[in-house]
Amino acid sequence: MNKKVVIAIAGFGNIGSNFYKLLEKTKVSVITQTGKTPIVKYISAKNFRKKRLVRIPKSKWIKDPLKFPKMKDIDIIIELIGGADGIAKKLVFSSLKNKKHVITANKALIAKYGNELASLAEINNVNLEYEASVAGGIPIIRSIKESLIGNKIDKIYGILNGTTNFILSSMESKGKDFSEVLSIAKKLGYAETNPKSDLNGDDSAAKIKILSSLVFKSTITKNYILTEGIQNITLKDITYAKTLGYKIKLLSISEIIEKKIIERVHPCLISSNSYLGNIDGVLNAVVIDGKPVGKVVLQGEGAGLGPTTSALISDLCSVLRGNIKLPFGISYKKKKKLTKFDILKHASSSYLRIEVQDLPGVLSSITKIFAKNRISIKNLIQNPDKKNKKASIVIITYKNLEKNYKNLFLNLVKNKFVLKKPIFIRIENL
Amino acid sequence: MNKKVVIAIAGFGNIGSNFYKLLEKTKVSVITQTGKTPIVKYISAKNFRKKRLVRIPKSKWIKDPLKFPKMKDIDIIIELIGGADGIAKKLVFSSLKNKKHVITANKALIAKYGNELASLAEINNVNLEYEASVAGGIPIIRSIKESLIGNKIDKIYGILNGTTNFILSSMESKGKDFSEVLSIAKKLGYAETNPKSDLNGDDSAAKIKILSSLVFKSTITKNYILTEGIQNITLKDITYAKTLGYKIKLLSISEIIEKKIIERVHPCLISSNSYLGNIDGVLNAVVIDGKPVGKVVLQGEGAGLGPTTSALISDLCSVLRGNIKLPFGISYKKKKKLTKFDILKHASSSYLRIEVQDLPGVLSSITKIFAKNRISIKNLIQNPDKKNKKASIVIITYKNLEKNYKNLFLNLVKNKFVLKKPIFIRIENL
Repeated sequence: MNKKVVIAIAGFGNIGSNFYKLLEKTKVSVITQTGKTPIVKYISAKNFRKKRLVRIPKSKWIKDPLKFPKMKDIDIIIELIGGADGIAKKLVFSSLKNKKHVITANKALIAKYGNELASLAEINNVNLEYEASVAGGIPIIRSIKESLIGNKIDKIYGILNGTTNFILSSMESKGKDFSEVLSIAKKLGYAETNPKSDLNGDDSAAKIKILSSLVFKSTITKNYILTEGIQNITLKDITYAKTLGYKIKLLSISEIIEKKIIERVHPCLISSNSYLGNIDGVLNAVVIDGKPVGKVVLQGEGAGLGPTTSALISDLCSVLRGNIKLPFGISYKKKKKLTKFDILKHASSSYLRIEVQDLPGVLSSITKIFAKNRISIKNLIQNPDKKNKKASIVIITYKNLEKNYKNLFLNLVKNKFVLKKPIFIRIENL
Repeated sequence: MNKKVVIAIAGFGNIGSNFYKLLEKTKVSVITQTGKTPIVKYISAKNFRKKRLVRIPKSKWIKDPLKFPKMKDIDIIIELIGGADGIAKKLVFSSLKNKKHVITANKALIAKYGNELASLAEINNVNLEYEASVAGGIPIIRSIKESLIGNKIDKIYGILNGTTNFILSSMESKGKDFSEVLSIAKKLGYAETNPKSDLNGDDSAAKIKILSSLVFKSTITKNYILTEGIQNITLKDITYAKTLGYKIKLLSISEIIEKKIIERVHPCLISSNSYLGNIDGVLNAVVIDGKPVGKVVLQGEGAGLGPTTSALISDLCSVLRGNIKLPFGISYKKKKKLTKFDILKHASSSYLRIEVQDLPGVLSSITKIFAKNRISIKNLIQNPDKKNKKASIVIITYKNLEKNYKNLFLNLVKNKFVLKKPIFIRIENL
């Protein structure tokens, strides 16, 4: 006889109900492969009557998920409420304290409280699984923890947000504006009604913080990391980038430089021929650079119902198999605390678009500012708009320090010919 | 105190000595992450004195690896001898029977005896791990077994042999002949002195058989699967393919059609813009098409010391973690036995290059053969070599059955204008 394992699902929206359905469908194979019989005994949701893919059986419904941790018969609690604080936070903390295994798709929660939650799970000898929280369809977390365990990894980077990647690649392929493409994305379900945390980079930042901690065996970075979104990317810049052989992508990058950690999320110009340059649409892709394994690339759908529920089932099977795993593959007592690398000392080449008045002496005035800041120009395109007496100056620079770009920027903004805040996008050589 | 786990390594060539070195280097992290202390107590090698990366400590050396299975203090045997039969086979069978965990990088052995070995491991309650046997640097086996467990997979395909991929992509990028590139590959260590099993597709066939069994939860196919190598691919064909927007790649493909299995390894024309079309050099890439996860792609170095030893360490950690896993993720009693799909009923479009005498009436004579076999022509290029009174006819066909191509081929060979066996390469739309 297979041992029965009792599950409670907290949060029964699209993900919850799809997970429930997929589990019913794959139950036989789950039982065969884990030797345990999972039983969803309780489901909590704010609204019992809401129209769903699956109706909540009356016998399973419990309004308040915060009752779950104290219920003796529950083995696993699956948190699908979302949000870094509020009920989700209370539920997960309390579940682990009460020795319940937890599975969650909540990246905001893990990014914010992952250190504390991992130590709680370890102390209470239960599992905390969160494969669905980062790039759902890509088995990235388990691969780092289990398959790449013998490697020294110095860099992890990739496209971790499907919404912004869809928007940027559609702007390029369709030649449409940001706002136009955003409303298409909403219609297709690729962007949420309020896509703020996708667009401003916060979603990607949470994910790269989690991945950093896993690959560098360090505590999750608290507080701010460099995070810029795609809200200011215009079709104009995408078109210039294309002419110059680049694509614009929102990348998440974490690396060790001089034994310090630097994590950043920002739009990048990358070669059109590069691997990540060819990842279009809602796809996600992650590149891990390790020794001795070399470059490992994982690609797949990042979010959406299918990939997320697939990841949840894999987390469930991991718990059902029965051995306790450390949530970050290493004891909380042994995690390194990495110092932050000063972002101002980071070097990259960059793309600048400066809108100026079309007057004699402008170009020399602008290039003088570059020279003053010791920033060398690699390419320069001047594109006059005679009718409006304006011109766009597009510049690709050689590698320089973030600090110098900051100063350059201040000088440019003050220049009398410059009409608005220049566009500044870093170039990554991948 | 951490429990000590005793390891015996059988076979101490490049892989064995590199693994030994990497294990010493990563020991602390392995102990931290698994809670066990691995100790390599025995090493077996044919020649004690051979020059190696690491000298075998005299105290560890045992000449005959077949003694390992009976030695009481050994917990894990790592087989790095190679070959589907002979000592490797004897050692692995005997180890499992004597309740020793086995880790192996031996794809030929697993492809040939995987069914038997998996049931032996299950019956004796020990682990059999073989991540290093397929696409070393890509965590493909563990991902299928653990991360994609909730998915229904209908197709798996990819580039599974780095040697042939290096040769094909170098022929294209450098415009060099097969034999010329082969000797470069040998010099760079990308091809073995005797690269036969790489070139003729046998190596890829062993790997796709293993992957098929994993994704379809079926027994490993016995006997022959369609296997064609790259020995007959010429620069001429690569150049024609390029002109037509294709690249030539040696693909391994396994899929379920009408509930039957079809496995094949052969050169393919694939779109230059496709994902696999851009995997060049020694890289491997695997695409898994699953529901609900969607398309998952894993890419990395397929072989070589670094990737292989990385995979071995991940297998070792999997064993050290302590829970027994079924080698194919499913009990041998529950594996499906799939019927083979009749390859003659498989449909694809194709590329043909036919060398003919340059005489009046040739083209009509050739196209008549196509018409007779009901094979429609999509593109045709006739390229005369006036000086030698010869011509090349390159044809891209619409989709048709393998059976009809067979007949077409027979008719073509008999045609009086045809100078030699035509080149036939299937086209895959990926």
